[in-house]
Parts: sequence; C-alpha cells; structure tokens
Amino acid sequence: MITITTFKWVPTFAQGYVKDHRLRWACEEAQLAYSLKLVDRDETTTDAYRQQQPFGQVPVLQDGDVTIFESGAIVLHLAEKSEKLMPKDISGRTRTLSWVFAALNSVEPFVLRFNVLGNEGSNDPSIEKQKSAALEILQKRFQSLDIWLKGKEYLEKDFTVGDIMMTTVLRNLDDKNIFKNYSNLNNYFQHCEKRPAFQKAIADQMKTFADNTPKA
Amino acid sequence: MITITTFKWVPTFAQGYVKDHRLRWACEEAQLAYSLKLVDRDETTTDAYRQQQPFGQVPVLQDGDVTIFESGAIVLHLAEKSEKLMPKDISGRTRTLSWVFAALNSVEPFVLRFNVLGNEGSNDPSIEKQKSAALEILQKRFQSLDIWLKGKEYLEKDFTVGDIMMTTVLRNLDDKNIFKNYSNLNNYFQHCEKRPAFQKAIADQMKTFADNTPKA
Repeated sequence: MITITTFKWVPTFAQGYVKDHRLRWACEEAQLAYSLKLVDRDETTTDAYRQQQPFGQVPVLQDGDVTIFESGAIVLHLAEKSEKLMPKDISGRTRTLSWVFAALNSVEPFVLRFNVLGNEGSNDPSIEKQKSAALEILQKRFQSLDIWLKGKEYLEKDFTVGDIMMTTVLRNLDDKNIFKNYSNLNNYFQHCEKRPAFQKAIADQMKTFADNTPKA
Repeated sequence: MITITTFKWVPTFAQGYVKDHRLRWACEEAQLAYSLKLVDRDETTTDAYRQQQPFGQVPVLQDGDVTIFESGAIVLHLAEKSEKLMPKDISGRTRTLSWVFAALNSVEPFVLRFNVLGNEGSNDPSIEKQKSAALEILQKRFQSLDIWLKGKEYLEKDFTVGDIMMTTVLRNLDDKNIFKNYSNLNNYFQHCEKRPAFQKAIADQMKTFADNTPKA
C-alpha cells in the first residue's frame, strides 16, 4: 500500500504547488491507489519525522516497509511499477533517469534562483546584474530544451516521469513569459499540463487543502 | 565497456572539480574499468554532441548501447553493477536513491547560490541581504545533516553513491568554514574525502588535464 505524507494545509499561494502533486500525478497516470497521511508544519520538526525525512520536508512516500524521501527518488520508485511511467528496457530506464535529474539539477535550481531575485522587485543595479546572469543561464537551458523537443511530443518517445518532473519544474517559474518564445518548449509544457492525470492530481491536492482549511 | 566523456582540459581553478570525478570515484570504489573520450569545449556545442547531452555539458557515460547524462543518473546506473555502491535490497536501493537526490536537489542548489553571491565580494547591502538569506538555508540543511549523521559513519549503514554525491556537493562550497562547526558533518566530509578511491579519482582527473595542457 502506498502512503503519501504531505501537509494538511498550506497558505493559498502554495496551494497546487506542494510537491506531493508530482507523486499524485504519477499515481494517476499509472492508476496506482494511494492513501494520504497529513501532517502539520510543527510535526515535521520532530525527531520522529526527521527519521523519515532528514530535512523535515514533504512529501515522504511509504510503500510497505520502504520509506523514501525527495520527490525525484519517489517518482522513480513509483515508475518501477508501471510502463506508463518508465519503459522496462535498460535504455528507456536510463533515459528516464537522466531526464528526472536534468529537470531537478540542470533546470530547477536556475528557476528558483530567478524567482528569488525576481521577487526582490527592486531596481537595485547589483540585484539587476544577478538577475540578468540568472536569466542568461535559464535562457540557455530553455534553448537547449527547445532544440531537443523539436518534432517530439515528449522528452523521449513515450511519456515518462521525466516529463512529470520537467513540467512541474517549468510550472514553478513565476514569470512564464520567459519560455513563451521557445515554441517547442512552450507547446510541450502546455501539452503536458493538459494531461487528465495532471489536472486530477492538482484538483485532489486542492481538495485536501480545502477540506483542512483552519477555522478563522 | 564503460566510456566516460569529459573535457580534455579545463583552466586550473576547475581542475579537480569537473563532475567526471564523481563517476571516476564510483568506478574506483567498485573496481570498474573505464575508458575516456576527451572533448574540447567547442565539440560540446555540436548537434551530434547535443544528441548525447542535450545541454552540452559533461560528463556523459556510454555503457554498450546505453547513453546516460547527468552525474546523478550516471552514478545510479554504475551503482547497479556493485554492492560497493548500493545495496541490492529494495530498502537499501531506495535509501541510496533518496540521498543522491537530496545531495543534488536539497543541498547543491544552495551551495551554488551561496558561491555565486560570495564571489560578488561586495559590501553592497542588497547582495549582503541575498547572501544572508542563502546562508540561512544552507545552515538549516547542514544542521539537518549534522543531526542525521550523529553516531553514523555514512549516510546509511554502508557507503553508497549517496555519499559520493553528498561529499562532492559539500566540496563545491567555496567557504568550507560554514560547515566546520557542524562536527558530525565535518567529520563525515573529511572521512569520505580520505577514501583511497576519492583520492585516486582526483589524481586521475588531474593527470588527464596535465597530459592535455594546451601549448603556450
């Protein structure tokens, strides 16, 4: 039995963006049943919780005796259960593995760095300089992805958890105009977001938070 | 046959830090033979190279018909070949997977962000504000790792590729004084760096660059 541990509730701006969405999306694609274990932010600081997740983050996945943390690790564990998430052959497996890391290590850090600087919202020249350096790397990555995706529906022949990670990483960019002009990338992003499993996973996350809204 | 593609030569400041070190270290631990394919920076921009590595980065690993990119993905592929790199049981496998992602996604982005800001070297108040926010996250992560590592030799019972990734990520921090006071973490880092396979992998990378130094 698969159990996803995540927050009981988060403030509105974070709703729809908590990383259990990646796991829910994978489960929906592969029609894997899961249950939820909901925690308060306070619970994530306890020693018992840190035994499951050393950094006190969510999500955590429990699958029988196995406890896994880090969304990238969890989607790869789920991917072992279904060819809808990862091919069975060695080449398909390693391509999927490469793309999950590419999303989380070659794209996400630069998305987050740009968001942080963008949220400063200043006209301070030293921040603007940092911002333009961060934008340059981001544009380089987007251009590489745009070239890669030419004539492709997904990162590889079939949809995999690599696409789940890349889509959710792109979705974290506050200013999506930055990749609007990379048409292959932009089409890919919109195409992935339209998948029914993506939508269902968002709706289910939003429902959890609606059901657990703190009383005023 | 395993082939590692990496740079023929890099400037002195980058020597010893090119990410093929992670792969060489894993190969040394498991006594896996490998050959090198050395490329110039210019070659990494070609269409043919981008077919192997969509972002034009190094390293790339070829193993028979399989081509893998992203150092995290590659070390996990290598780990399938030896229990010296990852246990065979499902729990040991998923723990290793979790730690490889933790190093690359929960620690490395904050190390690199802090390095970038630190290299600015200004007393500019807006940069200092960014730097102190980046330092705060980094200290939170180091504290979590320090608590986790209490009484442990490695992240899990036995050494795994998770330790290779965490050590090389920590090593990338320009100012290592930042984790000197987290004594469990600092001892762990030094203990991992002392492994003969770590040292051999560094020496071999340095030798490649020495052998290929451009003529003045």
